[in-house]
Amino acid sequence: MNWINSPIKQASTTYQEQATSRQASLTKPSGSLGELESVAIRLASLQQRERPSLEKVFISIFAADHGIAEEGVSAFPQEVTKAMLSNFIAGGAAINALARLQGANLEIINVGVKQCNESFNGLLQQSIAEGTANFSRQAAMTREQLSRALDVGRQSIERITSQQVDVFIAGEMGIANTTSASALACAILEQPVDKLVGAGTGINAQGIIKKQHVIQSALDLHQNNFNDPLSILQHLGGFEIAAMVGAYIHCGQQGIPVIVDGFISSTAALIAVRIQPDLAAWLFYGHQSEEAGHQHVLAALDAHPLLNLNMRLGEASGAALAISIMRAACQLHNEMATFEEAGI
Amino acid sequence: MNWINSPIKQASTTYQEQATSRQASLTKPSGSLGELESVAIRLASLQQRERPSLEKVFISIFAADHGIAEEGVSAFPQEVTKAMLSNFIAGGAAINALARLQGANLEIINVGVKQCNESFNGLLQQSIAEGTANFSRQAAMTREQLSRALDVGRQSIERITSQQVDVFIAGEMGIANTTSASALACAILEQPVDKLVGAGTGINAQGIIKKQHVIQSALDLHQNNFNDPLSILQHLGGFEIAAMVGAYIHCGQQGIPVIVDGFISSTAALIAVRIQPDLAAWLFYGHQSEEAGHQHVLAALDAHPLLNLNMRLGEASGAALAISIMRAACQLHNEMATFEEAGI
Repeated sequence: MNWINSPIKQASTTYQEQATSRQASLTKPSGSLGELESVAIRLASLQQRERPSLEKVFISIFAADHGIAEEGVSAFPQEVTKAMLSNFIAGGAAINALARLQGANLEIINVGVKQCNESFNGLLQQSIAEGTANFSRQAAMTREQLSRALDVGRQSIERITSQQVDVFIAGEMGIANTTSASALACAILEQPVDKLVGAGTGINAQGIIKKQHVIQSALDLHQNNFNDPLSILQHLGGFEIAAMVGAYIHCGQQGIPVIVDGFISSTAALIAVRIQPDLAAWLFYGHQSEEAGHQHVLAALDAHPLLNLNMRLGEASGAALAISIMRAACQLHNEMATFEEAGI
Repeated sequence: MNWINSPIKQASTTYQEQATSRQASLTKPSGSLGELESVAIRLASLQQRERPSLEKVFISIFAADHGIAEEGVSAFPQEVTKAMLSNFIAGGAAINALARLQGANLEIINVGVKQCNESFNGLLQQSIAEGTANFSRQAAMTREQLSRALDVGRQSIERITSQQVDVFIAGEMGIANTTSASALACAILEQPVDKLVGAGTGINAQGIIKKQHVIQSALDLHQNNFNDPLSILQHLGGFEIAAMVGAYIHCGQQGIPVIVDGFISSTAALIAVRIQPDLAAWLFYGHQSEEAGHQHVLAALDAHPLLNLNMRLGEASGAALAISIMRAACQLHNEMATFEEAGI
């Protein structure tokens, strides 16, 4: 896992200053394009270009099952993970529609879905095990499994480094993965369960209380292993969450900007930034999810998402939507006339 | 002005129910696409289609000068209205970049810009006068001018009714028009100036106080004429604001959905809805502007904008950006697999 600590690339202050001064020269009251101005300036600085661009978008969906599902913490049965994987491959899920709309490359990766040995056409098989262990009884994964899951994420970035990708998005699918993400957020942020546990795919108030109890007893069980982010990830995480952590960190190492999706992705981002604080510069946040814990994770990251549409779907959907906003930011930055050009 | 009171079209409850039931059948937890679900359902119901669409977008920018500018209420000199009109025609303004990005038709209409008699190629000349009168001294316009300005808006919709337009957006340009919009909002909502007056294009705190005083004395001067929305519009409005009111109302009469832009557009929408309450069903709100008064106008309209990016530019920019979100809503509604189709 030594690669995890390789340095994160630095953004360019030269391009940042150049983009800032260009924004001030465009035919609009200074600052009147709000967040779109800072998006364009940040992208120019990260991509080290005069004209930032978001043409080539790459989306990886990491799917895995969770042993904790057997505690009855989700509104859906575990089989839905595999069923949704088929749906991704068939092109019928939300992220498929959005990827088509945005002209984005979409890759589906099995990091550990139960009974998913058959070869779907278009599915990347990198299964570590048939789901994590039930973390209310034991560590979710072994140290070796953690290492492999992180590496699945690293490899997904390795495969695209030669392709001039403008931005990377990770998405996830895995029944019970808000339970894992909530537990991770509690342990990392040292916050109580009632702040960070929500309805996930749609459990009721009683279900949320049960989910809180399951997470609380798991936190009690593993508390002596919460020394560092990787150990927390090993004990409470999921294979798809670890893969996202690896992918985000390698994006920062390779100099590829990232749009983070919702609660689960942001929890992965939180872990990644705790491991590598310089990574923060490379992360944009697509949307504020309706899932209760998301706002606290975002606050810990000092993150300001572009959208707030009460979405809570995951599978990269909020980040994929935010591509439109960031493309508009680029278009405005690149195409608007300056006051001088317009003779004003 | 009799056309103003012609009835507003009704949305279809049949298509609404059909779209609601389709949303519940798509492969996602119920409600997990948040606002995108209600956008798709509303559009299906308004467009009376099983598959709502936002392919054909028409944007009209109405530009006019304001007599109130001579009170020194804006950060920019009045000449900038005409200069920005040239910029629109040349394709260098923010709305040009966004219209290109969205593949939207863009029409620029001179409703009353000072010294703008020359024939720009691509500018629609429908000037009513060289700016409104200074409403701190007299009514901004005569009743006849109001009628003509409303009709300019009506005509802009009349021209596109045969073109199967999926959605209409109005934008505005006019130095000092936040002063006019703030005065209108104060009079319509019967709220104090300090709630509804903001920085506009960027005046400082001292400038805001001056702007508040100018508006307060105008409100005092005209208060006996605040009997109905049209009279308020005549005394405090602008030609471009009146044109937007006319355009919005005629959209409702013709059955064309609208995306409302920022503070000035929303003030026009408020007046239009006070004249024709049924119009509310046809209005989507693109974004929450940074301009102080916008949130109060939106609250009065019970409006929930799709975006909040601290923009405060006007010229339809926020609404044009929201097209992306609404298109995504359509794409998801139309293309996602149902649970039955996916065998889940």
